Amino acid sequence: MPPLDEFGLIRVWTEGRQSKEKLAIAGVTLGIGDDTAIAGGTPGQEWLLTMDTMVEEIHFRNDTMSEYDVGFKAIAANISDIAAMGGLPKLALVSVSVPFQWDEQRMKLLFDGLYACAEQYGVVIVGGDTTSAPQHLVVSVTLIGSVETGKAIRRSGARPGQFIFLTGPTGLSAGGLHYLLARGAVELSSPQSVNHAPIHLIHAHQRPTPSVNAGRILLEKGWGTSLNDVSDGVASEAWEIAEASEVKLILNESQLPISGELAKYAHDNDINPLDWVLYGGEDYVLLGTADKEHEQGMKEHFRAEGIPLFIIGEVEAGKPDVVMETAAGATKPIAKQGYNHFSKG
Amino acid sequence: MPPLDEFGLIRVWTEGRQSKEKLAIAGVTLGIGDDTAIAGGTPGQEWLLTMDTMVEEIHFRNDTMSEYDVGFKAIAANISDIAAMGGLPKLALVSVSVPFQWDEQRMKLLFDGLYACAEQYGVVIVGGDTTSAPQHLVVSVTLIGSVETGKAIRRSGARPGQFIFLTGPTGLSAGGLHYLLARGAVELSSPQSVNHAPIHLIHAHQRPTPSVNAGRILLEKGWGTSLNDVSDGVASEAWEIAEASEVKLILNESQLPISGELAKYAHDNDINPLDWVLYGGEDYVLLGTADKEHEQGMKEHFRAEGIPLFIIGEVEAGKPDVVMETAAGATKPIAKQGYNHFSKG
Repeated sequence: MPPLDEFGLIRVWTEGRQSKEKLAIAGVTLGIGDDTAIAGGTPGQEWLLTMDTMVEEIHFRNDTMSEYDVGFKAIAANISDIAAMGGLPKLALVSVSVPFQWDEQRMKLLFDGLYACAEQYGVVIVGGDTTSAPQHLVVSVTLIGSVETGKAIRRSGARPGQFIFLTGPTGLSAGGLHYLLARGAVELSSPQSVNHAPIHLIHAHQRPTPSVNAGRILLEKGWGTSLNDVSDGVASEAWEIAEASEVKLILNESQLPISGELAKYAHDNDINPLDWVLYGGEDYVLLGTADKEHEQGMKEHFRAEGIPLFIIGEVEAGKPDVVMETAAGATKPIAKQGYNHFSKG
Repeated sequence: MPPLDEFGLIRVWTEGRQSKEKLAIAGVTLGIGDDTAIAGGTPGQEWLLTMDTMVEEIHFRNDTMSEYDVGFKAIAANISDIAAMGGLPKLALVSVSVPFQWDEQRMKLLFDGLYACAEQYGVVIVGGDTTSAPQHLVVSVTLIGSVETGKAIRRSGARPGQFIFLTGPTGLSAGGLHYLLARGAVELSSPQSVNHAPIHLIHAHQRPTPSVNAGRILLEKGWGTSLNDVSDGVASEAWEIAEASEVKLILNESQLPISGELAKYAHDNDINPLDWVLYGGEDYVLLGTADKEHEQGMKEHFRAEGIPLFIIGEVEAGKPDVVMETAAGATKPIAKQGYNHFSKG
């Protein structure tokens, strides 16, 4: 069976199972198919519901992430889905399935990471489950956020003439993972061990920071017309927006942000950094679209808030597609390819 | 590390992490420690939040449950937690981590089971995650239910003088599992293969039916003062009520319901059926307490509704304890022992 992360085969088994009428009766505004579902809530506020799972040997290994990192990132990945709707993260449920050989100290570190990330983003953990596992750690998190009724930023709002933006550079997490797989675990708190290591790339992979503030600005100002978090890579997220909005996205190669550390590390390892920028996942910045009339105001506001904003292309009419224009004026197709940590499958 | 299911070590890593003030600000009425958390909701209604995980080799094996069964039971187990609060199940998120060797047909059967149980109980699946797994299937479900504000039936309301009840016989699921482990998989739809098999026990194990109607009656009539679903066995659930309510529970051996099929199967296999009745899990009937003045009314109402009701003991003042009085008048301690499917650890 092909890797499920990559092709999103879940649609095959879920689509058409429940009627629109049934969803409406249950108070569901948006079901499967965006970063979160939208359902219920208090007056003036809707609830955003999302669930993300991390599996040992699929999303992390002992030599790429500590127990603390796994806990932290499991919460962060879910918060990022809430951020991608313009919402505020609120409540979490956490399920951990723990291999028999684990001792209590490893469990404590995992929970330290879970609660540290929750604390940092004002999330309260209200429940969950803890079970044994025969061999591999699995951490599932359900996150509930809130958003002003009718205001959530969906994937389907991109329109021709709008520009495409990123709220930070991408590819860092993939570069960090490359280093960890090549050199083994790094203890970031030990200066000796990180000599010459690309510490920002490693940090981006192990302790990602979801873009809640950027998402809130895009919602509150009414700027974001479509939005995704870059969990599966820029290419994959751009394709999701193109398909949901039924438009063509044109990325401008010379405008894609590449961090200096990533460029250097890629060069030293004879890798084209654009591969990571376009196809590396788990950077948790936001990719979205906005009207051109707001471009100047957005740039000024994001600069004042200290949040990066990169204009990387524009939306055209046409059947769903994503392409890249090179500096030389050529047009390259962008593959609908997701992120696969260890290229298994 | 001891089996986590058994000792609920999660408390060690979760208690005291978040202040009561913080929970209150987040709109959390009840946090970790009951069948569900209680938080948020619409006016007049609170939301019940629960999450339960099933892991291959821990909770099921290929020879004890089909893919369809696993999907069905993963939803049913979560619905049972909502029932144990007197609530109505509403929305689900589902995460499945699927071994590489699975084909699409197995996936389809798993999702058939998930959606069949959801459909049967009026639950809408609004999202989730699908990932690969290196070896073992893991299914996590988050279920959101609703309950009238302030009315949820907690574990902590048992008081001296009240009686203890069960809404159905227990031990069936454990008996069914015993058969499956001894004889291998049974195809219930094939009459030849089920000759002499204890089909109700097998069915109880593979396709359990959560007690939503019983829970609703106990809440709507104001009868239930404490309530648990029998997911970990009568002994374990009784201990949870005793500790949360700070009372002593006295179970009457001669009043414990034993189904005829269970008694026969246990006898044929030289097993004391009481071991399954007290320590077998996953029967998903409800164990609770009520005031004696309501005993007659409850009996009549449950009979009219076609739902079993067994009075099995009474609550006394005293430090948290669970004991059993035998027909001969002796008192036996009941161990605080949970259910462990395959006795691994």
